[in-house]
Amino acid sequence: MRTIRLDSESKKNILESLLKRSPNQYEEYTNTVNNIIEEVKSRQDEAIFEYTKEFDKADINAGNIKVTEEEIEEAYSLLDPSIVEVIRKAANNIDVYHRKQKQYSWFDSEPDGSLLGQKVTAIGAVGVYVPGGKAAYPSSVLMNVIPAKVAGVERIAMVTPPGRNGKIYEGTLVAAKEAGVTEIYKVGGAQAIAALSFGTESIKKVDKIVGPGNIYVALAKKAVYGHVSIDSIAGPSEILVLADESANPRFVAADLLSQAEHDELASSILITTSKELAEKVSEEVDKFVAQLSRKEIIQKSLDNYGYILLTDTLEEAIETANEIASEHLEIVTKDPFHVMTKIKNAGAIFLGEYSSEPLGDYFAGPNHVLPTNGTAKFFSPLSVDDFIKKSSIIAYSKEALEPIYKDIVKFANAEGLTAHANSISIRFEE
Amino acid sequence: MRTIRLDSESKKNILESLLKRSPNQYEEYTNTVNNIIEEVKSRQDEAIFEYTKEFDKADINAGNIKVTEEEIEEAYSLLDPSIVEVIRKAANNIDVYHRKQKQYSWFDSEPDGSLLGQKVTAIGAVGVYVPGGKAAYPSSVLMNVIPAKVAGVERIAMVTPPGRNGKIYEGTLVAAKEAGVTEIYKVGGAQAIAALSFGTESIKKVDKIVGPGNIYVALAKKAVYGHVSIDSIAGPSEILVLADESANPRFVAADLLSQAEHDELASSILITTSKELAEKVSEEVDKFVAQLSRKEIIQKSLDNYGYILLTDTLEEAIETANEIASEHLEIVTKDPFHVMTKIKNAGAIFLGEYSSEPLGDYFAGPNHVLPTNGTAKFFSPLSVDDFIKKSSIIAYSKEALEPIYKDIVKFANAEGLTAHANSISIRFEE
Repeated sequence: MRTIRLDSESKKNILESLLKRSPNQYEEYTNTVNNIIEEVKSRQDEAIFEYTKEFDKADINAGNIKVTEEEIEEAYSLLDPSIVEVIRKAANNIDVYHRKQKQYSWFDSEPDGSLLGQKVTAIGAVGVYVPGGKAAYPSSVLMNVIPAKVAGVERIAMVTPPGRNGKIYEGTLVAAKEAGVTEIYKVGGAQAIAALSFGTESIKKVDKIVGPGNIYVALAKKAVYGHVSIDSIAGPSEILVLADESANPRFVAADLLSQAEHDELASSILITTSKELAEKVSEEVDKFVAQLSRKEIIQKSLDNYGYILLTDTLEEAIETANEIASEHLEIVTKDPFHVMTKIKNAGAIFLGEYSSEPLGDYFAGPNHVLPTNGTAKFFSPLSVDDFIKKSSIIAYSKEALEPIYKDIVKFANAEGLTAHANSISIRFEE
Repeated sequence: MRTIRLDSESKKNILESLLKRSPNQYEEYTNTVNNIIEEVKSRQDEAIFEYTKEFDKADINAGNIKVTEEEIEEAYSLLDPSIVEVIRKAANNIDVYHRKQKQYSWFDSEPDGSLLGQKVTAIGAVGVYVPGGKAAYPSSVLMNVIPAKVAGVERIAMVTPPGRNGKIYEGTLVAAKEAGVTEIYKVGGAQAIAALSFGTESIKKVDKIVGPGNIYVALAKKAVYGHVSIDSIAGPSEILVLADESANPRFVAADLLSQAEHDELASSILITTSKELAEKVSEEVDKFVAQLSRKEIIQKSLDNYGYILLTDTLEEAIETANEIASEHLEIVTKDPFHVMTKIKNAGAIFLGEYSSEPLGDYFAGPNHVLPTNGTAKFFSPLSVDDFIKKSSIIAYSKEALEPIYKDIVKFANAEGLTAHANSISIRFEE
C-alpha cells in the first residue's frame, strides 16, 4: 500500500478522490431510470414482468411473483442448518441492540389545561430492496428488516431479482423469514423501486424504501424520494483505521483488507502517527493479499483508494478522520475511549484491537447499514428511527389560551396573516 | 365551500387532486436549477453576485454579502418593540419544547468486556434558507433555527435574498439574532442553495440545509441531496378538521380559513359526521371570507382544494384523515384524546376547540415546519432530531469475542467474504 506523509495538499487530493466514488456522479443513467419508472407507473405489472424478462431473463407473472410458503420451506431445506443457526443468533443480537433505540411518545402538561407532546407512530408499510446474484447477503436482509420490525411496521415488503429459473437464493429467503418480512416479490432493479413507490396490481405501494442496490436502484430511489421516503443512498464501503504504535500490524492489515474486498471502489485507509506501524502494516497487507480469494478486487481497491497516511500528531490524525467521516472507523490506540470522545463524524466506531469491523457487519447487533462517502457528517446508521415518524400534540384549554391570545394575534398580524389572527381572536370575541 | 358525501370514488378523486400540488410535479424547472448549481460550483462568488443582480436587482459583492452587526442593530431600531417582545416570548416557548426532544448518547456493557452504544453528535454546520419579500416570516426563522441551536450545531448560516436596496427585512434579522444564527448572507434562490452545498469564497459549505423556499429552492435542495442533507421538501399548507356535532362551527370555519389564506394551493378540509355542522361551517366560511384581507387567495384556495366531507361514522372520518395524512389536524370532537389514539398520520395534532392551529404556528412551542402533501405517512415535524446524527459504538475484549468468533467466520465465509473471515480468525490463530 502506498504511504503518504499527510499535508494539506495531499489531504485535499485524497478527500476529493474519495468523493468521486459518490453515486451522485452517475447522472448518465438518469434517463434510463426515469423511463423505467414512467413505464411502471403507467403499465404497472405488465411493465415489471417485461423488465424482469429483459434484465433477469426470468418468466415472472401475476401467478408466481409473490414468494409462497412452500418456496420458503424449500429454502430452509436447501440451506446448511449451521448457517440457519448463525443467522438466528445474529438476528437475536440485532433485535436486542435495536430495541434499545426505541423512542416513546411523551407529553408534558400544566395545571392550566395546556398539554404539549410528541406522538411516535411506526411507518405503515416499508419496502426492502435486496440485491440478487453475488450480492445477495443474508446479513443485509437482517440489518434492513429487523429495525423495521422493532419499530412496529405492519407491512414489510421485500423485493429481490429472481435468477433465470425464477427462484430466489435460499439464504435471502431464510433471512427474510427469520427477520419477519411479511411479503416477498420476485422483482429487482429500478422497476422494483417504482413498483414499491406507486403500486401495481401485484404489489401494493409502501411509504418508505430501504436497502442497498446497484446504480439503477440508487438512482431510482433518489427519483422517487418525496413520493415515498428512502434511506440514505449508499456508496462504496470504507474503513478508516486510526492507530498508534501500540496497534498490532497484522490485525490492522487484515481489517483494512476486509473492506477492500467489497468492490473496486471500496476504500481502506490507515492513519497513524507511527512510521514503524505504517511499514509493518504495508508488509502484512502484501502477505495477506496473496492468500485471499478475492485478491483481484482487493488489489484494485487498494490501488485506487487505499492509503497509509502518516501524521505528526494524534490530533492531526483525529482531525483528518473527522474530515473523511468514514463509514467504519477503528480506533486502535492506547486509550481508544479517549480518542472516541473527539470523533465527530463516523458511521460506526470500533474501539480496541478485538473490535474488528466484521464483528459489526455480522454479529454484535448494531446496524451495518452505515453512512458512506463522507455523509456521516449528516447521516446516521440505519436504525429504528428510520421506521417511525412523529406528530406534535397540542391541546390548550380556554384558560391556557386566554393569557397569550393577544400575543398570537399580534404576531400573525405582523406577518400579514389576518385569517390566522382571526381564528384566535374570535374565540374571545364575546 | 362545497360539501361532498364521502364514498370511495370521491375519496380517490380528492386524494389524487391533493397530491397534484406536490413540488415533485414541477420538473420543467429542473434544467434552469441545474444550470445555476453548475455555475455556482465552478464560478462561486462571481456567479452568485451575477444571479443576485439578475433575479433580485441588488448589487451584492464580497464586501457586503455578509450582514454586519450594524445592520442587525439597525433592524432592531426599525422593528416595533412590541413585536420584538412577542418574538422573544415565542422563541422561549420554542426553545423549551425542543429541549424535551434532545436525545442522549447511551451504552450498555457486559462484564466480559463487551460494550455497545450509540453516540449522538450535533451536525457541524447547517444552512437555513429564509425567503425574502412577502414570504419573510420571522416565525419561520425561529422554527428553523432554534432546533439546530438546541441540538448544539456550531455554525448556523442563514441565506435570504436582499431587496433591491441590498437590505434584508428587519423582522428576519431580529428573529435570526434572537434564535442564534451565527452568520447571515444576502443571497437567495437556487444560487444560495448551491453556495451552501459546495461553498464559495464568501460562504463556507455546510452539512445540511433546511428552510422553506419557492420551487427553484425546493428543486435545488432536491438536486444537492446526498452532497449535503436537506429537510423534507415542503409543499403547500394544509388543514384537516375532524369534527362531530359538538364542534363550534364559527371556530371551525375560522381555522379552515387560516390555512386557505397561505396560498392558492393550500388545502382546507372539514371531515364531519354532522350534516348540521357541515351546513353551519359553510355559512360561517362565507361570512368570514367577505371580511378577510386576503379574500382573493382564500377564495381560490377553497375553490381548488377546499372540501367539507360528510361521513356516516367517526371511524370512516378517522380512516380518511389517516389516508390524507394532513400537515395540520384539528380534532374537535367530544373526546378528542380518544380519537387521537387512532390517528396514525398527521404532522401536528391539535386537540379540542381552543387548540386553534395558529397557536401552533406561532407560539405554543412545537415546530411549525411540518410534513405536507401526504408525507406525514413517513416524515416528521422539523425537530432537534434533524440536527444530530448518531454513530454506533462497538468495543469488544478478546474474552468477549472468543466465544462467538467462529460464528462470525462461518457467516462471512457463507457470504463469500473471506477477507472478512480472515480479520476475525487471525485474532485467534496462536
